[in-house]
Amino acid sequence: MRITLLAGGIGGARFTRGLLHHLRTSGIDADVAVIGNTGDDIRVFGLQVCPDLDSVMYTLGGGISEERGWGREDETFVVKGELANYGVEPTWFGLGDRDTATHLVRTQMLDAGYPLSAVTEALCARWQPGVRLIPMTDDRVETHVVVDGEETGTRRALHFQEWWIRYRASLPALAFVLVGGDTAKPAPGVLEVIAEADVVLLPPSNPVVSIGMVLQVPGVREALRSTAAPVVGVSPIVGGAPVRGMADACLAAIGVDTTAEAVARHYGPRVAALPAGADGGGILDGWLVHDGTGSMASDASAVDPLTALGIPTRAVPLLMTDVEATAAIAAQALALAEDVRR
Amino acid sequence: MRITLLAGGIGGARFTRGLLHHLRTSGIDADVAVIGNTGDDIRVFGLQVCPDLDSVMYTLGGGISEERGWGREDETFVVKGELANYGVEPTWFGLGDRDTATHLVRTQMLDAGYPLSAVTEALCARWQPGVRLIPMTDDRVETHVVVDGEETGTRRALHFQEWWIRYRASLPALAFVLVGGDTAKPAPGVLEVIAEADVVLLPPSNPVVSIGMVLQVPGVREALRSTAAPVVGVSPIVGGAPVRGMADACLAAIGVDTTAEAVARHYGPRVAALPAGADGGGILDGWLVHDGTGSMASDASAVDPLTALGIPTRAVPLLMTDVEATAAIAAQALALAEDVRR
Repeated sequence: MRITLLAGGIGGARFTRGLLHHLRTSGIDADVAVIGNTGDDIRVFGLQVCPDLDSVMYTLGGGISEERGWGREDETFVVKGELANYGVEPTWFGLGDRDTATHLVRTQMLDAGYPLSAVTEALCARWQPGVRLIPMTDDRVETHVVVDGEETGTRRALHFQEWWIRYRASLPALAFVLVGGDTAKPAPGVLEVIAEADVVLLPPSNPVVSIGMVLQVPGVREALRSTAAPVVGVSPIVGGAPVRGMADACLAAIGVDTTAEAVARHYGPRVAALPAGADGGGILDGWLVHDGTGSMASDASAVDPLTALGIPTRAVPLLMTDVEATAAIAAQALALAEDVRR
Repeated sequence: MRITLLAGGIGGARFTRGLLHHLRTSGIDADVAVIGNTGDDIRVFGLQVCPDLDSVMYTLGGGISEERGWGREDETFVVKGELANYGVEPTWFGLGDRDTATHLVRTQMLDAGYPLSAVTEALCARWQPGVRLIPMTDDRVETHVVVDGEETGTRRALHFQEWWIRYRASLPALAFVLVGGDTAKPAPGVLEVIAEADVVLLPPSNPVVSIGMVLQVPGVREALRSTAAPVVGVSPIVGGAPVRGMADACLAAIGVDTTAEAVARHYGPRVAALPAGADGGGILDGWLVHDGTGSMASDASAVDPLTALGIPTRAVPLLMTDVEATAAIAAQALALAEDVRR
């Protein structure tokens, strides 16, 4: 069985870990490929940092800080402190010492001419994430956020990481732009693992700045529209709020309500002949929303309207409280994919 | 008063620290410039590392590890350990975490187009070493060591750092080559601080791979030959052995005995009209050797023959056991310079 996921950082990483757990405990033999968002990537202190790729790699490889959800466990921050002593900006960037080694290896290989996909493969040789991790593109792209300044006419764009980390997404975003996205080419393997998949899953990653950016790489949306595999998504919005992160601030910028239903409508049904939005047609064959189990409210009211729209939708427990709970969500996603297979 | 020194790593750094202590406690107002060896520089893990410049900067700025004599105090080695976990070579290079920040700042500035001299000035803005620290050249140069392999015909060259750190200078050196030295230009200020100095001092740095490499930068030897300032050296060899480091292994390669007298003869008297060696004439107006105070044997037997050769030589206590002892050596060097001033 071949399963392909589009992923951002922590949400995609933890969902994939649950999926692998489900496959292992169920004795299902599968090749899993993860197409990782690289819009978050940033060159900082001369180091090429790929936050989402690293979150997937560390989470699946057993090196992630479970507490922070990003970066390494048992991390220290000596380098960061020293850089601050030199007065080097940006001081808001959380550069860990263990993490620094990863970035040094990556930067050195990139500078030597290796594409990011080859570099990622080399890094994964150590971490053995159990998936084929592919950056969405080998080209240099960066998500920038357009914001208004306090004064009229001071609109400006800043790197997503600065908006996210430094400003904690508190500056109202007017738009997200994948700089370099227009001319970016999918990395080797990206279109193939979509085309040749038996199932494509969209984990509960940020629909705007994570999965949304993967979809902006020319060819990816078309590949999702044309693959024989069912495409099933898991709502990152539970009970009207993002489970983690600040997806609401991102959704507001693109005029999408922070509801499980609105996000599915934004992705759009794949059966629709016409584009759901201006950007080339829907991509979903199925959608999972939260059934109200646990502390968060139910989104089951989305099931009927979305199903009527052409996105068969099921309400199931969607809180990734631990690996077992996450594995159960992945199992539900695979089951839905089987049921909607055309 | 303007004092200029040519320096390698620990020997030059500690001597300069003693000199500054002497100037301060004696109320002597002086501008001190240190021309640092950059032949030891190495690009490693994508970082540009300048061991000798950093030793001077850290020692004079209060950040050096007194125990190791190189790198930072309270240093940790997390990055190094992680790089080893990735299987990245070279594993023999002692990259500290605090040190990594220095290298990141330097590499980023170099990549942005700043010359090494400007980068060094920027780093010194934090450390305030109390001297003007100038790299001998802004051009990329590297000292390589020619060695024989175990088999006949397997002669090869390796970077000085690899020979020094990895092999602890145990591979017999056939030659030291400053790769890039032929076409290197002195960094801005190098020739000026020699020409305009009131005194030039050669601290007890390695005469082959430290001061010897500074002398190989085209124009430096000529500047020393033509400056109006007296040029006084301090023997790095005491009682027939290097005080620290492995200068004997370096001297053997160039056919110079490990004695205070032989090193002075190698530098050569400046008064000689003809070259002392094949490389452009002598540079010394005066020389300090050890008088036997403390645990090491006396080199006083060198005084008469060297003085007769045209290098006025004095035997004084030369062990840099602490800052005060080192300050006394510096005072002796300045006194000798006054006495030999032409």
